[in-house]
Amino acid sequence: MIDSLGGEAPFSLDDDSLHEECGVFGILGHPDAATLTALGLHALQHRGQEAAGIVSYDGQQFYTEKRMGLVGDHYTDPATLAKLPGYIAIGHTRYSTTGEVALRNVQPLFAELEVGGIAIAHNGNFTNGLTLRRQLIADGAICQSTSDTEVVLHLIARSRFTSSSDRFVDAIKQVEGGYSMLAMTRTKLIAARDPIGIRPLVMGELDGKPIFCSETCALDIIGAKFIRDIENGEVVICEIQPDGSISTEVIKPQNPTPERLCLFEYVYFARPDSVVGGRNVYSVRKNMGINLAKEAPVDADVVVPVPDGGTPAAIGYAQESGIPFELGIIRNHYVGRTFIEPTQSIRAFGVKLKHSANRAVIQGKRVVLVDDSIVRGTTSLKIVQMIRDAGASEVHMRVASPMIYHPDFYGIDTPEADKLLANQHKDLESMCRYIGADSLAFLSIDGLYRAVGGKARDPKAPEFTDHYFTGDYPTRLLDQEGQKSNVHNLSLLASNG
Amino acid sequence: MIDSLGGEAPFSLDDDSLHEECGVFGILGHPDAATLTALGLHALQHRGQEAAGIVSYDGQQFYTEKRMGLVGDHYTDPATLAKLPGYIAIGHTRYSTTGEVALRNVQPLFAELEVGGIAIAHNGNFTNGLTLRRQLIADGAICQSTSDTEVVLHLIARSRFTSSSDRFVDAIKQVEGGYSMLAMTRTKLIAARDPIGIRPLVMGELDGKPIFCSETCALDIIGAKFIRDIENGEVVICEIQPDGSISTEVIKPQNPTPERLCLFEYVYFARPDSVVGGRNVYSVRKNMGINLAKEAPVDADVVVPVPDGGTPAAIGYAQESGIPFELGIIRNHYVGRTFIEPTQSIRAFGVKLKHSANRAVIQGKRVVLVDDSIVRGTTSLKIVQMIRDAGASEVHMRVASPMIYHPDFYGIDTPEADKLLANQHKDLESMCRYIGADSLAFLSIDGLYRAVGGKARDPKAPEFTDHYFTGDYPTRLLDQEGQKSNVHNLSLLASNG
Amino acid sequence: MIDSLGGEAPFSLDDDSLHEECGVFGILGHPDAATLTALGLHALQHRGQEAAGIVSYDGQQFYTEKRMGLVGDHYTDPATLAKLPGYIAIGHTRYSTTGEVALRNVQPLFAELEVGGIAIAHNGNFTNGLTLRRQLIADGAICQSTSDTEVVLHLIARSRFTSSSDRFVDAIKQVEGGYSMLAMTRTKLIAARDPIGIRPLVMGELDGKPIFCSETCALDIIGAKFIRDIENGEVVICEIQPDGSISTEVIKPQNPTPERLCLFEYVYFARPDSVVGGRNVYSVRKNMGINLAKEAPVDADVVVPVPDGGTPAAIGYAQESGIPFELGIIRNHYVGRTFIEPTQSIRAFGVKLKHSANRAVIQGKRVVLVDDSIVRGTTSLKIVQMIRDAGASEVHMRVASPMIYHPDFYGIDTPEADKLLANQHKDLESMCRYIGADSLAFLSIDGLYRAVGGKARDPKAPEFTDHYFTGDYPTRLLDQEGQKSNVHNLSLLASNG
Amino acid sequence: MIDSLGGEAPFSLDDDSLHEECGVFGILGHPDAATLTALGLHALQHRGQEAAGIVSYDGQQFYTEKRMGLVGDHYTDPATLAKLPGYIAIGHTRYSTTGEVALRNVQPLFAELEVGGIAIAHNGNFTNGLTLRRQLIADGAICQSTSDTEVVLHLIARSRFTSSSDRFVDAIKQVEGGYSMLAMTRTKLIAARDPIGIRPLVMGELDGKPIFCSETCALDIIGAKFIRDIENGEVVICEIQPDGSISTEVIKPQNPTPERLCLFEYVYFARPDSVVGGRNVYSVRKNMGINLAKEAPVDADVVVPVPDGGTPAAIGYAQESGIPFELGIIRNHYVGRTFIEPTQSIRAFGVKLKHSANRAVIQGKRVVLVDDSIVRGTTSLKIVQMIRDAGASEVHMRVASPMIYHPDFYGIDTPEADKLLANQHKDLESMCRYIGADSLAFLSIDGLYRAVGGKARDPKAPEFTDHYFTGDYPTRLLDQEGQKSNVHNLSLLASNG
Repeated sequence: MIDSLGGEAPFSLDDDSLHEECGVFGILGHPDAATLTALGLHALQHRGQEAAGIVSYDGQQFYTEKRMGLVGDHYTDPATLAKLPGYIAIGHTRYSTTGEVALRNVQPLFAELEVGGIAIAHNGNFTNGLTLRRQLIADGAICQSTSDTEVVLHLIARSRFTSSSDRFVDAIKQVEGGYSMLAMTRTKLIAARDPIGIRPLVMGELDGKPIFCSETCALDIIGAKFIRDIENGEVVICEIQPDGSISTEVIKPQNPTPERLCLFEYVYFARPDSVVGGRNVYSVRKNMGINLAKEAPVDADVVVPVPDGGTPAAIGYAQESGIPFELGIIRNHYVGRTFIEPTQSIRAFGVKLKHSANRAVIQGKRVVLVDDSIVRGTTSLKIVQMIRDAGASEVHMRVASPMIYHPDFYGIDTPEADKLLANQHKDLESMCRYIGADSLAFLSIDGLYRAVGGKARDPKAPEFTDHYFTGDYPTRLLDQEGQKSNVHNLSLLASNG
Repeated sequence: MIDSLGGEAPFSLDDDSLHEECGVFGILGHPDAATLTALGLHALQHRGQEAAGIVSYDGQQFYTEKRMGLVGDHYTDPATLAKLPGYIAIGHTRYSTTGEVALRNVQPLFAELEVGGIAIAHNGNFTNGLTLRRQLIADGAICQSTSDTEVVLHLIARSRFTSSSDRFVDAIKQVEGGYSMLAMTRTKLIAARDPIGIRPLVMGELDGKPIFCSETCALDIIGAKFIRDIENGEVVICEIQPDGSISTEVIKPQNPTPERLCLFEYVYFARPDSVVGGRNVYSVRKNMGINLAKEAPVDADVVVPVPDGGTPAAIGYAQESGIPFELGIIRNHYVGRTFIEPTQSIRAFGVKLKHSANRAVIQGKRVVLVDDSIVRGTTSLKIVQMIRDAGASEVHMRVASPMIYHPDFYGIDTPEADKLLANQHKDLESMCRYIGADSLAFLSIDGLYRAVGGKARDPKAPEFTDHYFTGDYPTRLLDQEGQKSNVHNLSLLASNG
Repeated sequence: MIDSLGGEAPFSLDDDSLHEECGVFGILGHPDAATLTALGLHALQHRGQEAAGIVSYDGQQFYTEKRMGLVGDHYTDPATLAKLPGYIAIGHTRYSTTGEVALRNVQPLFAELEVGGIAIAHNGNFTNGLTLRRQLIADGAICQSTSDTEVVLHLIARSRFTSSSDRFVDAIKQVEGGYSMLAMTRTKLIAARDPIGIRPLVMGELDGKPIFCSETCALDIIGAKFIRDIENGEVVICEIQPDGSISTEVIKPQNPTPERLCLFEYVYFARPDSVVGGRNVYSVRKNMGINLAKEAPVDADVVVPVPDGGTPAAIGYAQESGIPFELGIIRNHYVGRTFIEPTQSIRAFGVKLKHSANRAVIQGKRVVLVDDSIVRGTTSLKIVQMIRDAGASEVHMRVASPMIYHPDFYGIDTPEADKLLANQHKDLESMCRYIGADSLAFLSIDGLYRAVGGKARDPKAPEFTDHYFTGDYPTRLLDQEGQKSNVHNLSLLASNG
Repeated sequence: MIDSLGGEAPFSLDDDSLHEECGVFGILGHPDAATLTALGLHALQHRGQEAAGIVSYDGQQFYTEKRMGLVGDHYTDPATLAKLPGYIAIGHTRYSTTGEVALRNVQPLFAELEVGGIAIAHNGNFTNGLTLRRQLIADGAICQSTSDTEVVLHLIARSRFTSSSDRFVDAIKQVEGGYSMLAMTRTKLIAARDPIGIRPLVMGELDGKPIFCSETCALDIIGAKFIRDIENGEVVICEIQPDGSISTEVIKPQNPTPERLCLFEYVYFARPDSVVGGRNVYSVRKNMGINLAKEAPVDADVVVPVPDGGTPAAIGYAQESGIPFELGIIRNHYVGRTFIEPTQSIRAFGVKLKHSANRAVIQGKRVVLVDDSIVRGTTSLKIVQMIRDAGASEVHMRVASPMIYHPDFYGIDTPEADKLLANQHKDLESMCRYIGADSLAFLSIDGLYRAVGGKARDPKAPEFTDHYFTGDYPTRLLDQEGQKSNVHNLSLLASNG
């Protein structure tokens, strides 16, 4: 799959890839809270490029800034940071999973409660979000966004508990699904991870002040120390005391279940330099390439990565197979805005806007093309064609993850099941023919499990969330069981603001 | 007072004037609903130039557009109107009474209820708005704006009645103060005026379709027919039937009290060509000038209006006194944006950015300067000085309304009481000295009542709302009696979005 | 004609009016040079609302800012003024006479000469501009704008004289037509008026520093003293000396001819509070109304001005006739941007976007409608209809200037001759029928001359430029005699920048 | 040096790199001329990200669009392309070498000549540009930009030849330095390369229509065929005939000299997939890494590239040395606008905004760090520190080009000589200490020559332009010999437009 080695041009040209919804970052007790949050979000930019927001509190008042576009387009300039004073801040960067990209959906969301203001930021998706929303509206709630996250805010506002952290716990006990969530009040920074631990969330420390963020790369950018992963089902409540010291309380409000981190964090989402679940992502991806070379060897002249996502696996494949690694595809990082909806005459030039073949290393060669994953296959089709046009004598496609059969409901934006390549073809041979390669192979599920965790998948107690490959969803899917028609009611108001 | 004859440059240079908060317009059943609403709002632009919004419904979906600035800067271009399809629309133009001019405060406000969407637009102010807001938040409501109007929306959302119009009536029975309010649902257009009828609201008709708007000038611009004033305490519910016909229901949910329209609509706010409470505003203002000439005659050479607000009264004064009416002050209508906060070196040039003396008709003359009202007196001071600098031998200030002593709580943005000219000086002579005139006279309260309604004020049953002159508030002031401190909690979140 | 009493909303809805091209302002030796220039241009905004530019010099470097839109939309805010440091500045505000409204056409224009930089700003039009441009291009000049003014810049650059003022004089001796021009160099401020004195130009003084500007109202706004009119054919060269003192040299490089100021400055363009050619414009316009009442009396109930242009003449008409003056038409000053090209459904509402009838003073009345001039008649048609719709029993149109038959080539944007009302009808009766009035009368040319200068027109030596009424052009028209086809070559490059 | 493998984030965080000024593209006779030009410029975006412009001609008129920012931010959307109709187009993308980034400097530049319009676009720099400009101004030319290119336009305008192509040749014979230039007239597309061939320029063909562009990657993106390099000193004139056919004329107006292409095109500027001077750039860079491994071997555990510029050389180094290639530095491509001038608190985080260490592959390892070049050394210093902080036991810096001692005057923006690392230290050891590495080595000049052309440098007849390494400038430097003071005169006018 295209694009994940530490970055992605601001806009994608096609939708033949998966998208994570969000990255979160929060810090308590630091005088540069908003600046550090902006930098942390910048490091998490690969988790969502559509919009970013920050809320801060300075002991007097809450402040918020929300902007469409990159963190580095708006935040961290003195004028914007001057509008976000204070020593507590949380931030959020997002990719829209729906067509609606309005500012009102940009997180963090804020509410003024009787007990004071609260802001929340959330990565993930609730499997009972629509069901809860219907109940809230029936009970007189006014929803201003179409975001799942607002449901939590209403549950907090309506909770009968007194303290804001009790209300927060009360609220998250009612939601199901995958989430890593941050909340801030006038004195507290709260972090919570869903009972199964689908989405990642880590704790760090800078100058003795606690930080929570989606990935360790957001700690590295500011020179913060990694403390530990937040455990599945855990709620960590940090509170600044009148004397400036910070107390930390850890609770597990729900019944314990084994952790099952989302495999796609390893396959595609996380930054290669992040450590997720104790494992360096780059090394895991190289392992995938090594295992792929073992499972699906091929007699060839060069190993060419589909940049940037396929690069680590290609390095692994090359090292294992002894075939030279070469940059046979060059990526143009300057994509810009107007290429989003190119005119017909430009669309005809297709994938070349972002990639071009490096003919000199391809011409007359037998090429092993390594990518991290295949979703619809429409991009693979074009890439293979491009390699052939550049004169390759053979093109062998090697994919460093299994075939994708099932949609996700925990925060990954997947196409409908019948659009997936694996569901459109009866067998591997048909897929291979569709994308135009001489051979095609996917890493096995066991090969993937071994690359990540060291051992094969245990079907009775799988170590990871892997339903897109296996169909084994780790939770029930309440909204999916209800009537689809309710979905439509939620977007009755079209707006640009 | 500066500026009211049918228009005002987009931004005011000083705050020595009163501001109305809003104008409203709504229409049901017309294929050009949004276009007609935009035109109606354009005619009501003098009631608020800060921002404007329109909501429409096309049988499928609600649409909304909200923009800072003039109606004519954004609406009525094909691209914007294309985003507002449908046959029902309500619109709102506003002047911000607080420092916060965020888009989220721009009306109409919208909520998705269990029974379907509802939008409301509101001119006026609630005297128990903060009290209600506190109760709602304690009860778990999340307020997204700092606008009074949102309170009504929450009351509607939480009402236990089934139909949207019953819920609307249920809600407005809980608010106190001055308001003219429009609401729209998927089938209804609802108009309501407060029990005392402080703010104006009229009903009209175009092609057989009902229209509600703040002033008759919004009917005139689209060639619509004036039907009648909405009565104080009246709720009018128009509903489009499945066959396209429109039913109208009129109810008076609250105990009847006599109407008391706000006198300042006549003195300053309403457009001179509007008919308010059955009276042409221009003619009323001319009467004020006639009565002023009778009450406070002066031996002089020319009558000069302070444009544009003082012009009708000056015409009346000139006709009654026989002294020639001359344009001794020229107004520059091209004020633009950057003059809002002029640099110190520019501020020194003061009022001349907007006005200049027409020396030829002033030099060596005894001038009667006629203005509609005086608030702080800071502008009058500069105008009198400008006339003197232009060579007037005498300057006699005549004000076509009484002295202002008391703040308003029904939708007019007044300065704090101790900033008012009348409260800063012990007598008329001191005021006259402050503004630098040779003589100063205000129209008496009876003179004003006679100019408007034909007879003197009856202290036991005053015909109009006149507390700014008399201290006689027409309702209780619940929020004012409560703790001021609560006010601060409502703006805990600073935002630009 | 619509719109001239001291102001005009930013954009016009129709083109049934004449447009002046420009206003100019310059000051030498003052530490607030750019600020004062911005204020002066603000006062001259009625001479052109499309764009404005300022050039300043601070002893080291020239600076320039050019912006589309109103002076008050961009200039005079601290950030913009900070980019215009120095003690010499000239500025220009313009109305585009062509469809092309690009920034590159905004004046002042600047060139770096061998002898140092020079900037020029210009009000008027050359009658040999195209002819000169053709010669320059043939001689290797590169023209960057489509503006007439650039021709002068090239003539200066190519002049063989050494000093910049000698080069300037050399250049203007080659151009023909009507112009008031300012130039600035590193030490000089130069003002020049064409040999016939068609366009106005005055000299003033602030704190002992010389100012040149189009009208006296630009002196008044900054409290500067009026010194004198620049005479026709005069070049005034002010130079700042090393000791800071300012020398002034006056020359008349061309053969003397009698001055003939453009009558339309009195009829429509100049601000009513300006003194043009020694005459207060407001008083002159009142005189036109007085003479009109004498020439074309009518038995009626009210005199109603077409605001704002017709107001002074209406006051004069009312005073002379004894018929009461009333504001029967209310003007909406908040026109905004999107009404420029209204959609068809809005266009149908026509002139009402800007004006509305004040029914109460019109209904059942015999109305004398007074306007300053009629160009095409399309607006008059709508205004008369609007007055009739408001219930007038009779409508008598009185125009305070003669019929317009001929186009202008000296800086006034006139429609083609066959679009003019006077050329479309064989007699007054036919015109009256077209606009729908009960009677129609124009002020005679002698009546106009008497209103302005006190005596009737001397056909042998007319005191003013009046060709639009009489066909008597004050200069030869070289470009008109050449081939029209050359005009097209000049706009070969379409650009938005 | 940071950033060159096929792309660069829109804005650089520091100036420790060299910048190319421009890329050019032109096509004649194709119905999609402007679209193809936009795509070609997109592929050349690495040669300049500041601004881009396109001029087209449709048989009637010339059209131009110029925009600050990326090609993909503005061009290729239907609205912009619709403003560029026609079958001839040339385009230009630029990096500003001066602080002035005004639109008026954006190319192509256009002039309306007596013989019709001409537009030119130019990559490179003239060594006698200022000298010519002084002569032109003395001769009455008005320069509107501060761009070198305008000089050529004036020389064309003033040429006494009749045809536009003769005028073009006449003009370029007067300029000295390095340039690849395109010109278009109403019928012709002209390409010219300087006599030494410093800057690259190639010819291609699409659907039988001629294309000229800076690099072959601009042909690849549109599927065009590569024809040949334009030779040094060659002028190619393509003309569309009345019957639609295209004639081609090739001339060499100047005395032949051997070609000396700029080595930095191979080291850093050109895209790795381009073929420059018949050599694939990626392969040349890999050769540099191979030669570097031979010249400066080191006992180490991993080879880590400084991305993206150092990647091909690192692959070569790894293959030659047998040390594994690993992605030890991750680059963040989402840099955005506000990081350009980061606040002090952010600046402290330094290079990490763009790069981060991938700790897992570095910790405890002996690292060979491979970069393409070192300019000031300030970035290398930070990168080495970052690698050490990530736990490397040793850091060996290897640079795939020689030390830089001398500034460039042919279109590369180099810092002043005394800012260059090589000039700030007396020997390699001192440099090594400064950047904090355990060892430091540069590729020798002969090693570089061999990597590019196969054989060592012949000091008597060097095959390439290499003065930055050797001081051997390929032309005289006329402007440098003149007075520096003249430079200042050229920016006397500060402007934002």
